[in-house]
Amino acid sequence: MSDKQKIVIIGCNAAGINAANAARKTDPSSEIIIIQKEKVPAYSRCGMPYVLAHEIPKFEDLIIFPPSHYRMMKFDLRTETTAISCDPKEHIVEVESKEGEKEKITYNSLVLATGATPFIVPVKGQDLENVFAIRTLDDGREIQEAMKDAKSAVVIGAGFIGLETAHALVENHIQTTIVELLPSIIPTLFDYDMAGYVQQMIEANGVKMLMGKRISEILGNKKVTGVKIGDLKIDCDLVIMATGVRPSVDLAREIGCELGITRAIRVNPQMRTNIPDVYAAGDCVESQSMITGLPCLIQLGTNAVRQGKVAGINAAGGYSTFPGVICAAMSKIFDFEIGAAGLTENQAQQAGFRTVSGIITGATRAEYFPGAKEIRVKIVAEPYMGRVMGAQLVGGEDVAQRANMLSIAIQNEMTVRQLMNADTGYAPPLCDTWEPIALASEIAAKKIER
Amino acid sequence: MSDKQKIVIIGCNAAGINAANAARKTDPSSEIIIIQKEKVPAYSRCGMPYVLAHEIPKFEDLIIFPPSHYRMMKFDLRTETTAISCDPKEHIVEVESKEGEKEKITYNSLVLATGATPFIVPVKGQDLENVFAIRTLDDGREIQEAMKDAKSAVVIGAGFIGLETAHALVENHIQTTIVELLPSIIPTLFDYDMAGYVQQMIEANGVKMLMGKRISEILGNKKVTGVKIGDLKIDCDLVIMATGVRPSVDLAREIGCELGITRAIRVNPQMRTNIPDVYAAGDCVESQSMITGLPCLIQLGTNAVRQGKVAGINAAGGYSTFPGVICAAMSKIFDFEIGAAGLTENQAQQAGFRTVSGIITGATRAEYFPGAKEIRVKIVAEPYMGRVMGAQLVGGEDVAQRANMLSIAIQNEMTVRQLMNADTGYAPPLCDTWEPIALASEIAAKKIER
Repeated sequence: MSDKQKIVIIGCNAAGINAANAARKTDPSSEIIIIQKEKVPAYSRCGMPYVLAHEIPKFEDLIIFPPSHYRMMKFDLRTETTAISCDPKEHIVEVESKEGEKEKITYNSLVLATGATPFIVPVKGQDLENVFAIRTLDDGREIQEAMKDAKSAVVIGAGFIGLETAHALVENHIQTTIVELLPSIIPTLFDYDMAGYVQQMIEANGVKMLMGKRISEILGNKKVTGVKIGDLKIDCDLVIMATGVRPSVDLAREIGCELGITRAIRVNPQMRTNIPDVYAAGDCVESQSMITGLPCLIQLGTNAVRQGKVAGINAAGGYSTFPGVICAAMSKIFDFEIGAAGLTENQAQQAGFRTVSGIITGATRAEYFPGAKEIRVKIVAEPYMGRVMGAQLVGGEDVAQRANMLSIAIQNEMTVRQLMNADTGYAPPLCDTWEPIALASEIAAKKIER
Repeated sequence: MSDKQKIVIIGCNAAGINAANAARKTDPSSEIIIIQKEKVPAYSRCGMPYVLAHEIPKFEDLIIFPPSHYRMMKFDLRTETTAISCDPKEHIVEVESKEGEKEKITYNSLVLATGATPFIVPVKGQDLENVFAIRTLDDGREIQEAMKDAKSAVVIGAGFIGLETAHALVENHIQTTIVELLPSIIPTLFDYDMAGYVQQMIEANGVKMLMGKRISEILGNKKVTGVKIGDLKIDCDLVIMATGVRPSVDLAREIGCELGITRAIRVNPQMRTNIPDVYAAGDCVESQSMITGLPCLIQLGTNAVRQGKVAGINAAGGYSTFPGVICAAMSKIFDFEIGAAGLTENQAQQAGFRTVSGIITGATRAEYFPGAKEIRVKIVAEPYMGRVMGAQLVGGEDVAQRANMLSIAIQNEMTVRQLMNADTGYAPPLCDTWEPIALASEIAAKKIER
């Protein structure tokens, strides 16, 4: 037996902690060092809007593992520590603690799980007090504090995080306006037709929506007092920027890691970068679409955990591959669920595909079963073979697992004809005899030229 | 153009009405005659236990289409009418009304949607008052009436209908005992390991369960007063036989339709029988398993509606095929859901497969999200390629669509390795980062010899 191998993981959130856990299982005797910039390791960022909405009692609940987990797994966890440089030839990474102490750590394998950083709209006033991004636990706590005195808020960006934050603000009786640059909401997951439907549901919950508008200035002296959109001025005492995140790739770039067209780290299916013994996983890496085969940037927790696991197994000397992404995503806002899988019709067309689609509104239970909720499904297919390219769903319940089902269907290259005939079950309190997904597929199938 | 074609459909429930609707869409000018034995056409049998449980207000709510639908579709619906004989050479079916009037009807195509009949345990006392099967609306109404005075009941059979009926009895404060001949509950859908877990959940709701026991006599003078199981006597004033149904094939057999090994009508993928111009669909037909390729009898509403549609399209001169069955089934009992897809481990072994399986208990939401419910998943695979053969699920919510997802996965011949890496989404209020299905698949995958 050789000496213990040493694995250094930079970043301890979804990708980092899963890399660490998988590395430990793969090599029980290895030395595993985790470098975490924040004070707290491995918490669920996705849960933060639900703490703000009082659906989860407190931010501490979001911490995934207790300190005992790190001891049990024999992780050498360094919180409030930053990786400041790396010499990949010598296999040395230099870290710096909060107190400014620097240390050089050697590694056999290095995993970059450096995540992403919120994109801050470069606009005058973005550094005013009460202008927040929502990414870290500290962000969350600051927003929670600021919400106590806030009467009105502007959320910039109508992606999932923007919508979830708007929901939280409304739950706190704060008058909320969402401003989105693009003409429709959740544009990476929904086409305008489905988005318009969802937008109405959000507006019905009291949120004001301004679409296709660019913030020209954030107003205020020290503290925010409003935003300007051209000539329009909206008063508010809180601004949340939910305008997406950019992969954190400074260290990767410094050591020569190739970046992809999406400006994220390029990796192979084993999550190896082009630099020997350096792996990467999570929000900082570029993925490959299982639908088009093209590089893409899908910064979802579900990819991060699975990529982290693969990186950890390989970094520890095992073998595992990540098959690529479909992009199954879902959220719950107010009293309804939104879900998507694969490409939007717009994305499929951008990638060069011709498309057909089918939309139907059905019910989540047998129609006669009290409490049945509306569910609307859009299925997108290419019209040559009828292969399903994507799906969008919104409804009062049971959306999430349908999105997963569609992800599985897309992954298996099912056609709309297969999907309209798929064997799905029926039980009056749980679903209707004719599954809305089958009906939407049938509508799309009818549009295919023969 | 030739004369109008004449399509006769015998039976107007799940298969029959869907055959009629599809035939009408395929040939708008055809003459469509529907022969229905019962007073009421096309109602949801599956909903009856939920009426008895007061979850659906009344039996009338189960009727799928209003009379106007039959007029709009120009169906010639004959209720309380029985098909008494058929001459397939002459293309004539003879029907008899409630009043005893006989009529010979010619047809171009005949669809047999004759359904199934409850199996009545051939035991002394089975004809006593307050001994019921639960199949027709009349059965449902009689049970509802009998429940008003009942203090205790015995349900014979622990399949879905037996369990759903027991649930309804408990909701009516009737002390309930289930007696099942086989050693574990829902034996066609669950292996004993998962069944034992569900049995405990049912017992926790106050139902007494006697497994592996045969009713030797139903006691009583005119009205039932109890049942005997060997030396054991259980007092009760209501007995429900939920011991499965047998395909109704008298007419089919009479006209020479081939029956399969399951004693149901053999059809090809177009739902044609061996008799020219005679189709069959629903509970009376034998299906083919998409997993084993073997004939099987899967009497589920979801198959009936899809088979009926295919039969109707073909009977009207269109072209459609039924791809076979996976057997996706689900139910809600008390406050939990049960779901299954594919073969049980036992069934797979009976069919000659070696098997491995993985069982895990997970959560329906992120663990930190209040209200998360337990969900238990079993995945069955064959250990050569790791192909998924079946799945069993039970949990507090979100079981049904997971069963459907697994049906899709099985239909696509996914392996446990693919399923453990499948792209499923994550959102704290809706599902956890590591999907229990993926984790159970991983456990099964680890048992595969390499």
